[in-house]
Amino acid sequence: MFKGISASAGIAIGKALIYKSQKFNIEKANIDDVDGEIDQLKHSIDATILQLEKVKAEAERKMGLDKAAIFEAHIMILMDPEFINDIKNKIIKEKVCSPYAANEVIKSFISIFEAMEDDYLRERASDIKDVGKRLLNNLLGRETIDLSKLSEEVVLVAHDLTPSDTATMNLEKVLGFITEIGGSTSHTAIMARNLEVPAIVGVNNITMMVKDGDTIVFDGQEGIGYRNPDMHIMEEYSVKKKYFELKRRELFRLKDQATYSKDKRKVELGCNIGTPRDVKMALKNGAEGIGLYRTEFLFMNRSNMPTEEEQFQAYKEVLEEMEGKPVIIRTLDIGGDKELPYLNLPKEANPFLGYRAIRISLNQPEIFKVQLRALLRSSLYGNLKIMYPMISSVEEVRAANEILEDVKRELKEKSIEYSNQIEIGIMIEIPAAAVIGDLLIKEVDFFSIGTNDLIQYSTAVDRLNEGVSYLYEPFHPAVLRLIKLIIDYAHADGKWVGMCGEMAGDLNIIPILLGLGLDEFSMNASAILPARKLIAELSYLEMKKLAEETLILSTSKEIRNFIAENLKK
Amino acid sequence: MFKGISASAGIAIGKALIYKSQKFNIEKANIDDVDGEIDQLKHSIDATILQLEKVKAEAERKMGLDKAAIFEAHIMILMDPEFINDIKNKIIKEKVCSPYAANEVIKSFISIFEAMEDDYLRERASDIKDVGKRLLNNLLGRETIDLSKLSEEVVLVAHDLTPSDTATMNLEKVLGFITEIGGSTSHTAIMARNLEVPAIVGVNNITMMVKDGDTIVFDGQEGIGYRNPDMHIMEEYSVKKKYFELKRRELFRLKDQATYSKDKRKVELGCNIGTPRDVKMALKNGAEGIGLYRTEFLFMNRSNMPTEEEQFQAYKEVLEEMEGKPVIIRTLDIGGDKELPYLNLPKEANPFLGYRAIRISLNQPEIFKVQLRALLRSSLYGNLKIMYPMISSVEEVRAANEILEDVKRELKEKSIEYSNQIEIGIMIEIPAAAVIGDLLIKEVDFFSIGTNDLIQYSTAVDRLNEGVSYLYEPFHPAVLRLIKLIIDYAHADGKWVGMCGEMAGDLNIIPILLGLGLDEFSMNASAILPARKLIAELSYLEMKKLAEETLILSTSKEIRNFIAENLKK
Repeated sequence: MFKGISASAGIAIGKALIYKSQKFNIEKANIDDVDGEIDQLKHSIDATILQLEKVKAEAERKMGLDKAAIFEAHIMILMDPEFINDIKNKIIKEKVCSPYAANEVIKSFISIFEAMEDDYLRERASDIKDVGKRLLNNLLGRETIDLSKLSEEVVLVAHDLTPSDTATMNLEKVLGFITEIGGSTSHTAIMARNLEVPAIVGVNNITMMVKDGDTIVFDGQEGIGYRNPDMHIMEEYSVKKKYFELKRRELFRLKDQATYSKDKRKVELGCNIGTPRDVKMALKNGAEGIGLYRTEFLFMNRSNMPTEEEQFQAYKEVLEEMEGKPVIIRTLDIGGDKELPYLNLPKEANPFLGYRAIRISLNQPEIFKVQLRALLRSSLYGNLKIMYPMISSVEEVRAANEILEDVKRELKEKSIEYSNQIEIGIMIEIPAAAVIGDLLIKEVDFFSIGTNDLIQYSTAVDRLNEGVSYLYEPFHPAVLRLIKLIIDYAHADGKWVGMCGEMAGDLNIIPILLGLGLDEFSMNASAILPARKLIAELSYLEMKKLAEETLILSTSKEIRNFIAENLKK
Repeated sequence: MFKGISASAGIAIGKALIYKSQKFNIEKANIDDVDGEIDQLKHSIDATILQLEKVKAEAERKMGLDKAAIFEAHIMILMDPEFINDIKNKIIKEKVCSPYAANEVIKSFISIFEAMEDDYLRERASDIKDVGKRLLNNLLGRETIDLSKLSEEVVLVAHDLTPSDTATMNLEKVLGFITEIGGSTSHTAIMARNLEVPAIVGVNNITMMVKDGDTIVFDGQEGIGYRNPDMHIMEEYSVKKKYFELKRRELFRLKDQATYSKDKRKVELGCNIGTPRDVKMALKNGAEGIGLYRTEFLFMNRSNMPTEEEQFQAYKEVLEEMEGKPVIIRTLDIGGDKELPYLNLPKEANPFLGYRAIRISLNQPEIFKVQLRALLRSSLYGNLKIMYPMISSVEEVRAANEILEDVKRELKEKSIEYSNQIEIGIMIEIPAAAVIGDLLIKEVDFFSIGTNDLIQYSTAVDRLNEGVSYLYEPFHPAVLRLIKLIIDYAHADGKWVGMCGEMAGDLNIIPILLGLGLDEFSMNASAILPARKLIAELSYLEMKKLAEETLILSTSKEIRNFIAENLKK
């Protein structure tokens, strides 16, 4: 038996494949035929570029343009004259074989990048490792083992999986993952959930304990599994697997249905996305809209601002794929814990209380206007709603709307078209905004409650700070009261309210949110169908009563227990 | 004419005295009579200690024990065997004169301390400078010019004044200060306001522009002054001075009166203090109580925790001096921007949302219990109220009160007496606490609103961050609504509400606070009498109506203008 951290629910039963990153043991061989070695180098570089073109095309087909961009970057490295000449010169001057020369240059490039101050550039070291491995394999006449070649179904057992590994993987053959490192929010875990592949991470020494071809069974939800289990356990897991799949099929029957409570109150379930690529998963899980498109990912992990055209393409792609379903695009929410190296944001003593989000957009309208132009132009391709983050006052909404009107005027002057149906909304995530919700709602068409920050500011708790994260509490009575206040203020003005923080997808909290009258819930793709199923089983009127009774309780523990008891009945 | 930053209101007219720190030009003289030099050193050290004993006694009389402690530290340096032996060894080995040897050792000690990591120890370098100057003067047979020797009234003109300068100063002879450096919250400015001496700071090159004996007139409020002005200006300032003093005398007639609005609503004006020494100034300015005693100053600027006995003495001193008037002592509010090196608090990404105040007290009850024991023991000497800072939930109040009950039980077992009349209150400075004020008030006897933090968390603005401080806004409609909510919740339960943030002493805001029903206003000593005068001119019922009308406005600008217009009438 082995144990780890639950990363993605589901039961996996299959043969193990141990995936180890390749090791090179390259000897320094002296050569005389310098021209021959240089020819070999050229051939290998060309072969590697060809392979990468193929990998890139496949990644593009499976994952979308932005994921495939990694491989474009790899090709660029192989075409870099400095890189090639360094290897050539080493061969000529030192009269060494091409694999040795290449390996030395690759190592020195890696160490140069790893020593860089800039986070973005430092991360490029892993790209050089990746592409270097491919080149060395070609120089040595070896095959690059990648996961696109999987020919039979396997449970993949690895020390860790890199983004490059998963981008090339033949997903149809992977029954589950087990890795030695990573937590429940690691890249591997997130990807496993997105792909709906069962996974356990953080299993110590699993690559040593298991051999290729061993039978593996595991439960991704429980984080427990067995190597070569006995018949009894095999049968148990086989039943579990069938039950899990039955439940999943039941859920997927809800995919194309609207969301109603038992007593026919309609709500909308949206999906939170970070890139256009995420839309597929949203639709596959029955999203009725995009409740939050976090545009900051478009700005991150690059060394300059995305152009208006790049932004336009991304927004248009999402709107088109959603085919008229509502898409709420949030303007740049940078700062706090999200940095953009090329923006030169100041170092702050308390970045969460600092220069971020709409504050940056209003102070640097040259950046804001590019985004608004791209948004307006994209509006012709679907049902766009624009949302401003981190609003704390009426003045800020008015200032943002004025800039938007400026941009509209500029577009009109140039006869560039945009929809005149765009709804404008704001995030309610600062306590002051909740308290003056009646004043703010007059300036906009909708609210979306950002619960992560709302809890953080309401209770003065940085949830990323381990010393105080015990105080971060969605069931804090003040948090529930503020949510009620926000919803009541918006409804009194005939407007609707969504929520795009983590609370909106939490099955323990959804009943109360339904009872408080929330109109739209936006969450991760994998949470949508369970939420739809739960809501269908709940009565809005009963939840309304439950919410009212909950709001007079004094402590989060009382609230938690009261809700749990009442829902058990 | 010269201009600077207003530091303390009032008009000064008098002769200039330029106060420059003494420079030493000590030559390296070779000597033969080693024993003679060492004798001279011993004599000079003894003489310096004697002088310091006198200075210390005088400082104690004028300023209280804790201020005088600086000079005790100076004496300790002179008695430090390492310090003395280093000088002696230099004289013996290098055969140099004692002033040279002393100066070299002093310089090396200063540079050692200045290079230290620890803030507290690094600051000790200035003590060594101070005491070194005195010792060198004695060795050289020169007099130490200190400001205790002032024999005629002067306007003091200096580059800067150190705490040690002001501790020894003969205040009766100082008509005003002008300094080249410092801002409105610098040590010099704060002291000038406390002493009610007019002062301007930040006047470039004033020590070069002015000569000893020049006639100086200046207006501390305006930050404007003249050197050797003409008759016309002299007369203008003389009239201004008389008017200012008339107004001040009028104010001081209110010193022993209670505070009532025009329509006889009684409120209480308390004073915020940091040390027992501040009580004198509070009483001199007519404080009806201490609305906030910040105990953290007792813990700061030292290298270990104060003992129960030290805390007890400080609390007792304040309670006794206040003679039965209410004294609200706040338990340790450390963390955030206030560090205690010996507590080893973690470095945090967002310290204002981190491990601080009651969170520390509840997690480290061994520290909290010492303070509570000292508080309970002191309660027999006056009218003590205990207040917990940074409360965000009912659970925290209950936990703090449980620890308090534990400590009471322990004292009872040891037959140590304490008052059973102690009121317990909490700071309301976290938005969540305001929102659940109805739940919290059931656990305590009173609230005190901490507006600085309340504004900060409500609007997600670190007011110390220059990039966003424009968003820090007491007139934010959400801030005023939260204040109203807090007061209404407490009154509904028959309890009283104070305020100890900066808003409570702001003459522009007091009318609204009166109208919202605030019961107690606690502020800096110098703000008390102007507040009492203002409140006496206001009608509570009119202000109640004004507050109601204010609370429906949308922006802080509208609110500011509306109040200003209505009060002009």
